[in-house]
This record gives sequence, structure tokens and C-alpha cells, in this order.
Amino acid sequence: MATTIAYLGPPGSFTEQAALLYDGDSELSSFPSISAVAAAVATGMTDKGVVPIENSLEGSVTDTLDLLIHEPGLLIQHELVLPIEHHLLVKPGTRVQDIEVLYAHPQSLAQCREFRERCFPQVPVVAALSNSASVQQMMSHQGQAAAIGTQRASVLYEAEILARSIQDRSSNATRFIVLALTDHKPTECDKTSLCFSFSEDHPGLLYKVLKEFAECSINLTKVESRPSKEGLGEYIFLIDIEGHREDKTVTEVFEKVKSMTGMFKIFGSYPRCPL
Amino acid sequence: MATTIAYLGPPGSFTEQAALLYDGDSELSSFPSISAVAAAVATGMTDKGVVPIENSLEGSVTDTLDLLIHEPGLLIQHELVLPIEHHLLVKPGTRVQDIEVLYAHPQSLAQCREFRERCFPQVPVVAALSNSASVQQMMSHQGQAAAIGTQRASVLYEAEILARSIQDRSSNATRFIVLALTDHKPTECDKTSLCFSFSEDHPGLLYKVLKEFAECSINLTKVESRPSKEGLGEYIFLIDIEGHREDKTVTEVFEKVKSMTGMFKIFGSYPRCPL
Repeated sequence: MATTIAYLGPPGSFTEQAALLYDGDSELSSFPSISAVAAAVATGMTDKGVVPIENSLEGSVTDTLDLLIHEPGLLIQHELVLPIEHHLLVKPGTRVQDIEVLYAHPQSLAQCREFRERCFPQVPVVAALSNSASVQQMMSHQGQAAAIGTQRASVLYEAEILARSIQDRSSNATRFIVLALTDHKPTECDKTSLCFSFSEDHPGLLYKVLKEFAECSINLTKVESRPSKEGLGEYIFLIDIEGHREDKTVTEVFEKVKSMTGMFKIFGSYPRCPL
Repeated sequence: MATTIAYLGPPGSFTEQAALLYDGDSELSSFPSISAVAAAVATGMTDKGVVPIENSLEGSVTDTLDLLIHEPGLLIQHELVLPIEHHLLVKPGTRVQDIEVLYAHPQSLAQCREFRERCFPQVPVVAALSNSASVQQMMSHQGQAAAIGTQRASVLYEAEILARSIQDRSSNATRFIVLALTDHKPTECDKTSLCFSFSEDHPGLLYKVLKEFAECSINLTKVESRPSKEGLGEYIFLIDIEGHREDKTVTEVFEKVKSMTGMFKIFGSYPRCPL
């Protein structure tokens, strides 16, 4: 039986592209939110779930971080990196000079700001809830319109690509994670993601934790903070380290760090995706 | 002559409320984006500018962080904290059971998710570009609609507040900063914001920087990382410390940290706003 995978939809999203890249033979199901994907995996409705976690321009996808922090039972089994390309889509035959409205998801619009300001400074923008909703809305618009959308959305909705790769920076890439009920067995080249917080606030606690990793030459590939949701100024720290949670050195450092922190949660160990 | 202040508009936004709180006698001008507010201050069009920097639920406002990192000449002169309250606005006389569409900015919608799922599970949502655009669109909607909006927007657009304080968490607050060409003189209780990055990547560099602060008992009130925009896995670290950049201890630590980092930029020193 094919593996079932929940992904952040709707069809045509970058996450669908990532899920297809991860396992082209799987049975994909679209879900409307990151927390819905998580619920699908946690309840066994699907075997796995694919969600975005970090974009090279925009930074972290906070919904995914909050999910990893607060949702019990879900682990990261894989990561994958997808270059992000935005295209300008129109109904077949539409001419540039006739475009009177532009449909776009606000984040994608932000990533194509220069293109928009140069080519369509006067065209009003209508916000869409996703990168394929923008294309759907454009296709059903009465009159001449354009949408910022994906390659996949152009196929699904039979739209024409009028301009390719319109994003401001060519280095735009998104990291996705595959969620499951188990993480990955050790390979030669792994990463482990975790978070922790402190029950008291005094100078240098974060530094003391990082010191433990530094002294064992465990490389940190990411350090970031999220509000604890209890109030401004209270943080949960999220870090990615090189190594597997079953490695002896890693296990030893984790034991020390656990004793120094209030909350401590491992999100899983998984093979490192080459950048 | 009254101080002129640029703020992230449109009128009715939380940032307008923050600007009014900061200086009720000033002359306010609305700008459509965070970078437009920055440009207004940098070019002398206005004396100051007010933008949001951090929300207790959503985390940092990345546009503001990127601006502080990349824009030369702008400094933080003040900070202020505003409790964030979302209300459900309607045209006067509209009844709950008649509402057929809900206008909302996606971030505000996310902050009112539980309310929406309980009270309006079947009502379609239309994305708006801001918390007052949602109210404007609702008021001009043909038929019965509602909008998630602010107290100020209800006054500006003469909308009725049907439900008050509909956000999921009562601890929702946003920190705003006042940008100017100079920062603030030392007071008894200051904060300094800065960022740095490393020109090479090896284990423990961040830890070595934090160690310098910890050893001088300088408290960090925020630590966070942003993608450098050069590619996934390269970061710029942003920290807030207690103290003024003219304090002797702070100056000495900064000199040491400068020698350890590639890029090092001070965003300004300013009085701490009590949380």
C-alpha cells in the first residue's frame, strides 16, 4: 500500500511540490493549515505530513515551530530543501498591458516586490490566502488579471506563465520537514532539532547551555528564539545540532542541558539535507 | 511646531494607536509599508517613525528587523508596548446570524482562530491587507458582513463593535519602536539593541560572544536569529541588552565583541518600557 502523506495545501502549493519530491509514489492529501497536517499525522489519518519550516528570505515559519514546541508525539523524520520560484500567471492569451488587477499571497508579493514595483506599479493588488488560491481567483476573474503563483498551479489551473522566476532574489529556498510518529535511524550524517526554556531569568543561562555544546565540538546549525506566549520577553530557544540523538556525545550533553533547563524537548533526529 | 511622525498605516492600525500613545500632540502621517516609514524618517520627511517590532504571540516583525539590519542611519529612540485587542465589527444594526462573510488580515485571523472556529465555522473568510482595510471592505460590502478590526477603526469607519476582545489569548501585546536619526541619552534604566554575524562558521562562536556579556553580568533581554538572505543556514544574530551603549562596561564588551564578529551594528540605546 502506498504511503499516505498530508501536506499544507491547497493543490499547487510549494509544499505539494516538496511532498512530490519527497515521495512521488505516495498518496497525497491536501490540508488547509499546518495544524491540520499535524493532526492528520498524530491521529494516524496519514502516515506522514509535510510542512514548511524555514525560508531563506522570510525566516522561520512560526506556525510550524509552535507546533513542534507544543504538540506532543510528532517527530521530524526528514528534511528537504526546495528552491522557491514565483511565476506571473495569466489566462492564456492575456497581454501585459491589459492586466488590471494582481492576485497574490502577501508573503509571495513581498518576495516579488521589486518586480511588482517596476512592472506593475499602478496595478491594484488583491490579497489571496495561498499561492494557488491566487491563481484560482485570477482564472475566475471577470476581465484581465494576473496572479503570482507556482509552476504546479499553472499546470493544475491551465494558466499561462507570462513571466518566470520573478522573485527578487535567486537564492530563495524553503526548507520543509516530514513529520511522523517516529524519527529516523542514525545515518552517517544527521541533524537533531530541539527546544528548551528556562524557569528563571538571569544573565547568561543561554550562554551556559551553548557552552556545553561548544565544549564537545557539537556544531549548531541553527539558534533561534520564539515567544513563550506567556508574555513579551519570555522565550523558548530552538536549536539544530549536527549529530543523532543516539550518538554518545550528544546523549551526554543532552543530560547536562536537561538539568539546566525548565522545559526540554527533542523534535527528532534525521538525515541532513545538503544545502 | 509639532513633531511629525510617520507610522505604518492605514489609519485605524495598531501602529497608529501606538503613535498616538507615544505623542498625542504630534502630526501623524500614514505610510503603506514599514520600509516607507523608514524612508520618511531617513530623508527628513518626518521627524520620527513608529513601526511594530515584536508581538507576544507571533514573534518578531521580520520586515522591521531586516530594516534595522540593512538600513543605515536609523536608530531606535524609544520603545512602547501596546496590548492588542481585536474586535468584531459590523455595519450598525447587523445581526450575528445574518453574517455571510468575514473580512480579516491573515495574522489577526490567526490570533482569533478559536473565536472564529466556535462562532463562525461556516462563514467564508476574505483576506484583507490590514486591520483597517478589513473594516473598510466590510463597510462597503453589499450585504451582511463582519470584519476583525481595531477600536480605532470602529471610530474611523463608524462601525459597530459586535464582540469585544475576541483574540485567543488575553496576554497578546505588541512592542513598537520609535525610529529617528538619533537614539536616546542615557537614563537610569536603558536597553540597547544590536546585531552581529560571523564571517566564518565554526562551533561555538555565538557562545563566545554571549560569554562576554555573561561575564560582565550584562543581562540579555532578547536573542534571536535572522537568515542573512545569502542562503539557508547563514544567520545574523540580534540581541537586546540591559544598559546604555555609553555605559563603560557596555562599551568595553562591545569592543571585544566587535573583534570577534564579521558584521556588528548598534541599533540604538533607549529607555526600557516596563512590560
